[in-house]
Amino acid sequence: MHVSEIDTPALIVDLDIMERNLARVAAYSREHGLRLRPHTKTHKSVRLARRQLASGASGLTVAKVSEAEIMAGAEPADLLIAYPILGAAKFARLIEVARRTTVIVALDSVFAAEQLSAAAAAAQVEIGVLAEVDAGLGRVGVAPGAPLLGLAQAIEALPGVRFRGITFYPGHIKSVDEAGLRAIAEVSALLDGVRAEFAGAGIALEIVSGGSTPTLFHSHEFAGLTEIRPGTYIFNDLNTIASGGCALEDCAASILATVVSTARPGHMIIDGGSKTFSSDRLANPAEVTFGRIVEAPAARFHKMNEEHGFVDLTKAGEEFRVGDRVRVIPNHICVAVNLHEKVYGLRGDTVEETWTVDARGKLQ
Amino acid sequence: MHVSEIDTPALIVDLDIMERNLARVAAYSREHGLRLRPHTKTHKSVRLARRQLASGASGLTVAKVSEAEIMAGAEPADLLIAYPILGAAKFARLIEVARRTTVIVALDSVFAAEQLSAAAAAAQVEIGVLAEVDAGLGRVGVAPGAPLLGLAQAIEALPGVRFRGITFYPGHIKSVDEAGLRAIAEVSALLDGVRAEFAGAGIALEIVSGGSTPTLFHSHEFAGLTEIRPGTYIFNDLNTIASGGCALEDCAASILATVVSTARPGHMIIDGGSKTFSSDRLANPAEVTFGRIVEAPAARFHKMNEEHGFVDLTKAGEEFRVGDRVRVIPNHICVAVNLHEKVYGLRGDTVEETWTVDARGKLQ
Repeated sequence: MHVSEIDTPALIVDLDIMERNLARVAAYSREHGLRLRPHTKTHKSVRLARRQLASGASGLTVAKVSEAEIMAGAEPADLLIAYPILGAAKFARLIEVARRTTVIVALDSVFAAEQLSAAAAAAQVEIGVLAEVDAGLGRVGVAPGAPLLGLAQAIEALPGVRFRGITFYPGHIKSVDEAGLRAIAEVSALLDGVRAEFAGAGIALEIVSGGSTPTLFHSHEFAGLTEIRPGTYIFNDLNTIASGGCALEDCAASILATVVSTARPGHMIIDGGSKTFSSDRLANPAEVTFGRIVEAPAARFHKMNEEHGFVDLTKAGEEFRVGDRVRVIPNHICVAVNLHEKVYGLRGDTVEETWTVDARGKLQ
Repeated sequence: MHVSEIDTPALIVDLDIMERNLARVAAYSREHGLRLRPHTKTHKSVRLARRQLASGASGLTVAKVSEAEIMAGAEPADLLIAYPILGAAKFARLIEVARRTTVIVALDSVFAAEQLSAAAAAAQVEIGVLAEVDAGLGRVGVAPGAPLLGLAQAIEALPGVRFRGITFYPGHIKSVDEAGLRAIAEVSALLDGVRAEFAGAGIALEIVSGGSTPTLFHSHEFAGLTEIRPGTYIFNDLNTIASGGCALEDCAASILATVVSTARPGHMIIDGGSKTFSSDRLANPAEVTFGRIVEAPAARFHKMNEEHGFVDLTKAGEEFRVGDRVRVIPNHICVAVNLHEKVYGLRGDTVEETWTVDARGKLQ
């Protein structure tokens, strides 16, 4: 099948670029002795999770129990659910996953730990736990110092769960410029302090899990880090470029779209909007735009309705006709993938394989 | 099943409110002699399309051929695809739908009309066509006057297709304030002019299809309008309230979410973000927020990651604990529904029925 035969809008992936992205991060992890546990939220596909495991990953990360159920199908050595799990329905399903593979859960409250412990103990399974520390984002995670140590000690005292270490997400570091490097050093100092406190309390930190997409290739600068869990790197997107985490030629995924209207002079409408790209804006926008038109980089994809993409061509230096096709690199690939049922993997202009977004819309 | 047994995050619908919304718009349409052809993009469910047809709708609207394939299952008398269809793959599928029910396509270029005509004529089916006129939004639609008349004449001359009338979407009218009423009058004058031109040219306008959510209950003020195709009215959302199109008590749909972290004082994290609500902002925001917390209307749901909702409680006057549940009315229900596999229909606090979002993610 040739790319021109794909019906639009469609999510397409350049396999050469994707494979290069996988190899680069696997090599980086090996070089720095970091365990690689990719976050599968970006691709949500068992097939790509298997490829990550085959190319150097030693475990997988998910955000939801429903994703864990699906990603257990990739047969990872272990599976981190990087999200506080609550509620009887989720615990029952989590325990079934834990009967298939080693499961670790990240959490930040004694309440969540107690609930998990009760469920695991009653089912006679053991579930690993990472205590989440807030490294500066103010999302989930307790403060370092007494709150973190207290949480770890509470987990250690509970049956059915095993304290494995700590986790953090430095999402407040948006790019690795001078301020970003300072922020990495601050998080590193925070981790130094945590390790000293835990050593003093006689609690082993088998796992220190962390990192983020902008800081990916600086992960070795976080003191004592044992594993990273990057997600976006498999495809990359405009936000990754803006953060300094990749170059344009590292973007593997784009949306193939068709021009459906040129009735308004100097503008065109493409057959994808917020239900195709998501309405995620750029993380640090100079102006509001929703993607880069590969065939006309100076065009402004400035507005969307659900199924309409508004592209201003007045400065594009290109003209398009109804029926023409364009490729659009999205702002944020993780939310865009989640809108598609199927992905086309291209070698050059030939569709070499297709795959389903298995964990698409798995919210619980 | 009680609402407290639903696993979160989940899309829940108050059936009493939904039924009232359906009845109100059916009564309005009857009163003003307007044909009601609801846009199913909002709910994407065959079950709800059947309910719309049973409660006064005489046809259905969709945006994509894939949605048409699914909504044909609701057995509408006719089906409008309010989107320019292009490409052999879509034409082949469209023709199969046209063998099951009357199909009408909206388009705005002679190119799209010729392509559709060739496909329909070769398959020996007849497909209705509406010529789209730009009423001020600058999305799809040709200018009124010679471009519109010329498009209609071109359609009339083609085999396999039958010119049925015109369509417009006054999406530039964001609310029915004084400026909005003036804009409705301008569109109405535009339609008067179009009707006079078409009468002069001897072309019948069997269908004049138009309207929008903000202008819904002013549809009768558009001169010569024969049908409306509202979508959002079945559920409503914060944008509908902001446009003046409904009140808070008319919002039938909300997201049920669980508090997963209160580690940061004065804030909480709920278990839904951009993959649960979509990242659509309010159409006319005073500030960036992503939903109204029913249990704490003064809370600010100000930020999202994919699976995390950040809620600032510093002015909320309410406190929450990990494990508590809240209902959140989203900014834009159409894109939120598209992220969910399943919907829970509640009568009071009891789940009376559930349904699937059948056309979820149908992009082609």
